[in-house]
Amino acid sequence: MIPNAPIRAERIAADIAALAAITEPDRPYTRRAFSPTFDEGRAWLEKRMGEAGFTHHVDAAGNLIARMPGAKPELGTIMLGSHSDTVPDGGRFDGVAGVIAALEVARALSEQGIALDHDLEVVDFLAEEVSIFGVSCIGSRGMTGTRPAEWLSRESQGITLKQGIDAVGGNGAAEMLRNDIKAFLELHIEQGPVLENESLDIGVVTAIAGITRIEIVVEGRADHAGTAPMGSRKDALTTAAWITVAIEDLATALAAGEAHFAATVGEFVMEPNAANVVPAKVRMLIDARAERREDMDRFLEELAKGVGGIAERTGVTVQPLRIVSDNHPTPCDPDLLDVLDQSCEAVGARHRRMASGAGHDTAWMARITKAVMIFVPCRGGRSHTPEEFAETEDIALGASVLFEAVQRLDKQLQKDR
Amino acid sequence: MIPNAPIRAERIAADIAALAAITEPDRPYTRRAFSPTFDEGRAWLEKRMGEAGFTHHVDAAGNLIARMPGAKPELGTIMLGSHSDTVPDGGRFDGVAGVIAALEVARALSEQGIALDHDLEVVDFLAEEVSIFGVSCIGSRGMTGTRPAEWLSRESQGITLKQGIDAVGGNGAAEMLRNDIKAFLELHIEQGPVLENESLDIGVVTAIAGITRIEIVVEGRADHAGTAPMGSRKDALTTAAWITVAIEDLATALAAGEAHFAATVGEFVMEPNAANVVPAKVRMLIDARAERREDMDRFLEELAKGVGGIAERTGVTVQPLRIVSDNHPTPCDPDLLDVLDQSCEAVGARHRRMASGAGHDTAWMARITKAVMIFVPCRGGRSHTPEEFAETEDIALGASVLFEAVQRLDKQLQKDR
Repeated sequence: MIPNAPIRAERIAADIAALAAITEPDRPYTRRAFSPTFDEGRAWLEKRMGEAGFTHHVDAAGNLIARMPGAKPELGTIMLGSHSDTVPDGGRFDGVAGVIAALEVARALSEQGIALDHDLEVVDFLAEEVSIFGVSCIGSRGMTGTRPAEWLSRESQGITLKQGIDAVGGNGAAEMLRNDIKAFLELHIEQGPVLENESLDIGVVTAIAGITRIEIVVEGRADHAGTAPMGSRKDALTTAAWITVAIEDLATALAAGEAHFAATVGEFVMEPNAANVVPAKVRMLIDARAERREDMDRFLEELAKGVGGIAERTGVTVQPLRIVSDNHPTPCDPDLLDVLDQSCEAVGARHRRMASGAGHDTAWMARITKAVMIFVPCRGGRSHTPEEFAETEDIALGASVLFEAVQRLDKQLQKDR
Repeated sequence: MIPNAPIRAERIAADIAALAAITEPDRPYTRRAFSPTFDEGRAWLEKRMGEAGFTHHVDAAGNLIARMPGAKPELGTIMLGSHSDTVPDGGRFDGVAGVIAALEVARALSEQGIALDHDLEVVDFLAEEVSIFGVSCIGSRGMTGTRPAEWLSRESQGITLKQGIDAVGGNGAAEMLRNDIKAFLELHIEQGPVLENESLDIGVVTAIAGITRIEIVVEGRADHAGTAPMGSRKDALTTAAWITVAIEDLATALAAGEAHFAATVGEFVMEPNAANVVPAKVRMLIDARAERREDMDRFLEELAKGVGGIAERTGVTVQPLRIVSDNHPTPCDPDLLDVLDQSCEAVGARHRRMASGAGHDTAWMARITKAVMIFVPCRGGRSHTPEEFAETEDIALGASVLFEAVQRLDKQLQKDR
């Protein structure tokens, strides 16, 4: 940290602690979108925005936005932010760190009397995490015109999504597509161990990895475990085990390249799952993430080939791979990456470029504007758990990077017009 | 089949069909012990025993027994039989074939006017299958003094096991240990594919395999599937997959020897089983069966070694193997094996010796008397399913083997005294 910097670490710490206290009491830290606890968190944020002297409103998509008008409003808006909702039994920093850092940047600019030419907005996106409606990034999708219309009629806990958006002060019936935003920047905890392991302060995020989910169904035969000779079985589990091992080998090979790649068999359900019956069926769900689409294409191709070979060798039927969902990677804006590298240098932050393996609102914002993220380290790479932890100093240093970047962008975006 | 043989195949077929019709109507074939359907089956069996001219009673352990007195009752009893209860959604032949074959042998002897010196008993053991009380072989354990006293207070569906035994006409409070039985023979469907594959009529069972159940718990770490680099994970599933493969390799190697060996990972439960989380924990339950105890000892030793090596290589913690249950193999009586081989030759049955991978009442009867089993082929090796099927001719030929064996034993047992 730069001593006497405009960014005030103790204020960031206090704000994060205050939001952490707004949780389902017997289930820290839980502040799920569309819950009274979430509304309480939003009310607290609005109060803090007001105390800092910012006007604020909830947009049609349900996002809470504080605004600091610029000298030349015709230039459009620079937006900073993240989300204040959590998963059940989540942490204090995922999302919140980015909202509070964004608010702190705006406060610091205001306190330093720095007037930007662009309007500056601080956003708390609605429902970034998988919500009670089974979908995520509801607010950023709404703001970018990418929220499927049919989502509105989804029902959960007695309300529709449309009613949920209306209840937080949005307008579920309205479609929106912001065209005034010129840059979007999000600070987030890494949710991985790389920065901590390499003793770095900041990850400058080159891309949000694409996520492809693949279902594999292995169909064997439910023989008697005592009487079916080893050589005559069609054991779905051993075939699924070979596939699991092949997936790890393939993913490890792809991850050895320059770009981020990971694949995980996250769901694995076996039938009949009875002690004395040879497994008849295994359903596996694979989560694969790639910074570069060509790696994902190669993974899918090699996986199909590998699975075919295993099925042939074991004599057990494997259904053709089923692509359950397939989102391509989102590269971050190269100009913004350069500005962030420079800003890191300017504030003395040790930094590296890296991909985000997790999905974020930034991926949706990139549909309508130059967008980028920075990561700050988190302990043990852990997130979505009460043990999730990031150092105040690290978040404050990240906020300082954004404070620097926003001022650089305010000028550079005008040159680039 | 021998034309005009004393054993009447059509009567066997009719009896099996009659019992099959006594099932939970919407769930064929279900006649679970301690159910009204089971009681109905027992009543039908008692009627058939009476029609054949045999006296019958239910012993203290809840077994239904028909009796054909011998000329020299001081010689003791030769017993034949199996069980009439089924698993839920079971088949028509598992157990029933052995009860009806035993009854047919007694009927044939009676009709042929063949008077044995020994008493002959036909038994329908109570609850051979895993019952509503979660335990199996209740009747044969009861008859052999091996039923744990604490079982009696087990409760299910509003009754205790003691009450269940009382309700079928037994005396749950009484302990029994028959010392008059000189030989026990059971006919059963193979429940495996060996006889069918080798076009044989009869399997002469050398041993009931021992069953050892082993729990392995793999403990990894629940990282984020998108952000945890491949190289830094502790994925419980991939370690469990390697263990699964190692188990199959080990079991296949042991099964290549002369004696029966099989091992199956029948239960496999993963946590948290969420699409985007690296698997944190896998619990595996292994069912291992060995004809020879030395094979099981070797399996356990090699498994512990193999699992240790895998854990070391993957860096994921594997709890020490936990032996959940451990039953040693039961060799069948060598004298009875010879008598059965001779009887097969006498009736022209193509036969081989083989082990039983499944557990049977015979394993308990072997605690108190010379005991042996014969297998008849079943289609596709399938059992415990409505598709379970055995040819009437095969069962009748098996009954003919028993018919022959009983007469030989009646003499031989006197010589051996």
